[in-house]
Amino acid sequence: MKKKRVAILGSTGSIGKQTLDVLSAFKDDFEVIGLAAGSNIQLLVEQVKEHNPRFVSVKDAFLAQELKSILKNPSIEIFWNDVGLEFISSCSCDIVVNGLVGSLGLKPTISALSHGKRVAFANKETLVIAGNLIKDLLRKHHGEIIPLDSEHVAIHQCVNNSSKENIKRIILTASGGPFRTWSKDKIHAATKEQALKHPTWVMGQKITIDSATLMNKGLEIIEAMYLFDVNHSQVDVFIHPQSIMHSAVEFIDGNIIAQLGATDMKLPIQYSLYYPERKQLPFNLFCDLLAIQKLEFEKPDYEKFPCLRLAYDVARKGKSYPIVLNAANEIAVDLFLKEKISFGDIEKIILKAMDSHNATEPESLDEILEVDKETRQRVSELTNSAV
Amino acid sequence: MKKKRVAILGSTGSIGKQTLDVLSAFKDDFEVIGLAAGSNIQLLVEQVKEHNPRFVSVKDAFLAQELKSILKNPSIEIFWNDVGLEFISSCSCDIVVNGLVGSLGLKPTISALSHGKRVAFANKETLVIAGNLIKDLLRKHHGEIIPLDSEHVAIHQCVNNSSKENIKRIILTASGGPFRTWSKDKIHAATKEQALKHPTWVMGQKITIDSATLMNKGLEIIEAMYLFDVNHSQVDVFIHPQSIMHSAVEFIDGNIIAQLGATDMKLPIQYSLYYPERKQLPFNLFCDLLAIQKLEFEKPDYEKFPCLRLAYDVARKGKSYPIVLNAANEIAVDLFLKEKISFGDIEKIILKAMDSHNATEPESLDEILEVDKETRQRVSELTNSAV
Repeated sequence: MKKKRVAILGSTGSIGKQTLDVLSAFKDDFEVIGLAAGSNIQLLVEQVKEHNPRFVSVKDAFLAQELKSILKNPSIEIFWNDVGLEFISSCSCDIVVNGLVGSLGLKPTISALSHGKRVAFANKETLVIAGNLIKDLLRKHHGEIIPLDSEHVAIHQCVNNSSKENIKRIILTASGGPFRTWSKDKIHAATKEQALKHPTWVMGQKITIDSATLMNKGLEIIEAMYLFDVNHSQVDVFIHPQSIMHSAVEFIDGNIIAQLGATDMKLPIQYSLYYPERKQLPFNLFCDLLAIQKLEFEKPDYEKFPCLRLAYDVARKGKSYPIVLNAANEIAVDLFLKEKISFGDIEKIILKAMDSHNATEPESLDEILEVDKETRQRVSELTNSAV
Repeated sequence: MKKKRVAILGSTGSIGKQTLDVLSAFKDDFEVIGLAAGSNIQLLVEQVKEHNPRFVSVKDAFLAQELKSILKNPSIEIFWNDVGLEFISSCSCDIVVNGLVGSLGLKPTISALSHGKRVAFANKETLVIAGNLIKDLLRKHHGEIIPLDSEHVAIHQCVNNSSKENIKRIILTASGGPFRTWSKDKIHAATKEQALKHPTWVMGQKITIDSATLMNKGLEIIEAMYLFDVNHSQVDVFIHPQSIMHSAVEFIDGNIIAQLGATDMKLPIQYSLYYPERKQLPFNLFCDLLAIQKLEFEKPDYEKFPCLRLAYDVARKGKSYPIVLNAANEIAVDLFLKEKISFGDIEKIILKAMDSHNATEPESLDEILEVDKETRQRVSELTNSAV
């Protein structure tokens, strides 16, 4: 088999690092052709030395210059900023792994899909804000998205090319995050350190905070709607503290098909690289149900986790609301991580942003980015005056 | 769509009755062309009046005469005994539902598959005693088996045409039966009434006793080996008291795909009739995971349930052993149901039959039936002298 060429966006992030771990185990089947990182030059240099990509991109021209002087390798082309990300995502690769966080991943996704690539996709925010645009591109250019979120890769396997008419509903599972058993007051006063302690998954900072508010699950509802062509009333969230059943699909004939597995992103990453083949897992990550003993399921508590309800509202309303939800959440989480607002402020900021928004129906990328930009400005003003 | 024609073997038994319930709900898609029953003429007459089949078969000539005089319908052809079963299973039907119990189902299965039919298959004993023969027929005549056992129909959906090289192992779940939490001594002294109280499923008498000894799970291990082309070391049994996860498949890449659903045979029956399509469930049989709250898993106790270990031994040894296991079990269960032996005697009888057997490698139907007959004679002698 000819080696498949892989480009990674966000190579020094959580998904990027784990993708490189998987690729290191399968050097006969894949080669790394491009790496895009932000500003972690030290790690990027190590990655470049091990995987020898042809194209590398960093956050800005200054970092690009620094990287160049460290690598001293004229056969590696070095890019920077948005242009670099878009170049890497449309380079001569077969698979683009999009491990970027937030709306930063939108343009590179458009670029990869416009070139008909397979995108292994951990960047749910892109689908939340531009789902219809992405679906149009998939139709036009015959690219494909293989989800990397453990939930959506579970659903991908459960659906397994069955027609969407067969799907009664999607059961999206959620660990419940670190605050599942906490009181509402205690949750509101949670510290950054407490919110970053996820009970079952090790992930990047933004998604870990989103998991604590359950906004992550909310964004995943919208992501699932676009990926699997279902409406909001066909996506149910079940709290499942063990995080072993990553999601399930209930079919119209009463059969539920579920995916279970270890809580390690290397499994979805390997799946997305090889799909539709399956390849022997080279890591000791098989899931021992007998050791786990039980799987529990409960209803989510919308009172304690209002972000989940906000996301359902947005999923139902559609229009420009998902863009506002996502932008307000990104800013609020960033402020919380900088310890400028309390945990309880996150939901308040998003709610204010939603309430003061005049809905539109953006179709083009420019219109989407305009709503995104307007929301960020509006939220920044709100928070500057309030915080 | 042209209506599919269905023949049912064992129409007055548990599977047969439920199949007719399903068919009653889908009269636009199916017609009942043949019904084969034993001696429950009263129920058979009701079934004939409702479903108007062209061919009917009963246990013997006397019952056939009785049925004829009740029905007074010259357009219905009436058959009896083995010949009747084989006629019905090879008549002008598209699907044969084999709901027969024990080795009685072997010849009609051969007949149906020799005519390239789809067999909806609840008759695991046939695969246990003649698995290789059945597989040869499937290859030669392009018929197909869609399993009706809840476990195997679960596995069928989890495998979903994936290549067998992708399967690491099958996780066959078992409720544990009515004696899961009992002591070994108490189990040995269990009454017929106690053994017939299955905690989660309503089924026929023989399979209910087999579920109490766990021999049912043992037979299912061997059935799974033939249906899914795996070896005995690739089939693990997990006790799962809730009987909601009906089985699962672990793939080589660490992903486990499981099927969950209500404990009602109408679900597998509907699946087997429509496969590969799925059709809206007309019964209120959706599975509410939130009401069930938890799914538990534990190792089976081979000390308390030696029949399961016996079945694994037989699965490993192969040759004529599965025929002996099955025949001895059928006789022992029959004696227990007639209250001639104790529950604890079942395993002893099977063990004695195995120990005194000289293994052969039967290939033809005649050779298989010869081992079956010889075992039944030998076990009858053993039990007549011992009981």
